[in-house]
Amino acid sequence: MAKESTTIDIGEPSTVTKSTSHAVADEKKKSFVTAAAGGGYKRGLAIFDFLLRLAAIGITIGASSVMFTAEETLPFFTQFLQFQAGYDDFPTFQFFVIAIAIVASYLVLSLPFSIVTIVRPLAVAPRLILLISDTVVLTLTTAAAAAAASIVYLAHNGNANTNWLPICQQFGDFCQTTSTAVVAASISVVFFILLIVISAIALKRH
Amino acid sequence: MAKESTTIDIGEPSTVTKSTSHAVADEKKKSFVTAAAGGGYKRGLAIFDFLLRLAAIGITIGASSVMFTAEETLPFFTQFLQFQAGYDDFPTFQFFVIAIAIVASYLVLSLPFSIVTIVRPLAVAPRLILLISDTVVLTLTTAAAAAAASIVYLAHNGNANTNWLPICQQFGDFCQTTSTAVVAASISVVFFILLIVISAIALKRH
Repeated sequence: MAKESTTIDIGEPSTVTKSTSHAVADEKKKSFVTAAAGGGYKRGLAIFDFLLRLAAIGITIGASSVMFTAEETLPFFTQFLQFQAGYDDFPTFQFFVIAIAIVASYLVLSLPFSIVTIVRPLAVAPRLILLISDTVVLTLTTAAAAAAASIVYLAHNGNANTNWLPICQQFGDFCQTTSTAVVAASISVVFFILLIVISAIALKRH
Repeated sequence: MAKESTTIDIGEPSTVTKSTSHAVADEKKKSFVTAAAGGGYKRGLAIFDFLLRLAAIGITIGASSVMFTAEETLPFFTQFLQFQAGYDDFPTFQFFVIAIAIVASYLVLSLPFSIVTIVRPLAVAPRLILLISDTVVLTLTTAAAAAAASIVYLAHNGNANTNWLPICQQFGDFCQTTSTAVVAASISVVFFILLIVISAIALKRH
């Protein structure tokens, strides 16, 4: 409590508070009232932040596991060769699975910090930590999603100039599954942008 | 000036200022002194922000134009075919050129806002605008860099599973040039992360 009373923003209209709480002259109580007034919408932001993180955990775990299980074996085979496509045939998809799994773990680990910002909406340190680490993880998520998207595009369309043939005619289900994973990761990118905007608004002075 | 005196952070050790400026009892002058003390390191951050933006403009223009001029024609040709590789043979590289050019234009347009934060280090609005738009543009830059990187990787190594052959044995110079552009874009990603961290630190209350 002593900490909270030092971190409150006295830039708030504290004179108004002073006139309403005319009877209670206790300094500590007054600062608590001011903190509660200032922390109101910031607590709302913190709760929204927590819910967004929960949704992002679901989406990233989904994206990673959908890509991990993407596999298709064609129903015909020759004597020496069975036609099969899996995520581990593409280094980019392997990177995707690992990166998005790391992002999901980070989101789980960030939940305690998010809870701290709900309990203490005016605390600066956990907000700043969340904003900076969210920015770094946003980069990782975007990189994984974009790299996988460019490979998915290539698998769908091929490239006539370099003679890279599209494989989606043969492996339609595999392409469908990997596309789904890429879309899920892209949605989680939007979630991260929202999380950063929330942190920025919660950090600003008034 | 009247605006600035209302937005200053009284959470700063104003009692120290009060004791040093014992002679001057003028309220306005005192608040200006406090603002100057609070804005000191924030002005430093704003100047660093401006310089980072200038560097990022150079790097993004460089990356975009290097990719744009990436072209290689092989010294032999058949009767019907001349072997040539350019950035416009790859949709991902076209996206890279356009996206990074947009990022460079955004950076130029963001310079006035950065100057406003140097002149008024305690103003919240331009900082918040810069932070949010930097986050969105960071996503665009990362997506362009990662998508191009996955194609460059494929051009170097190929993919035996899908029978996509590496083209860098033939088009060595082209691969070299595109790799350089990707590295430059990745450096500008780091710059954007720094810009966001600077904005976050400048936004926090004390």
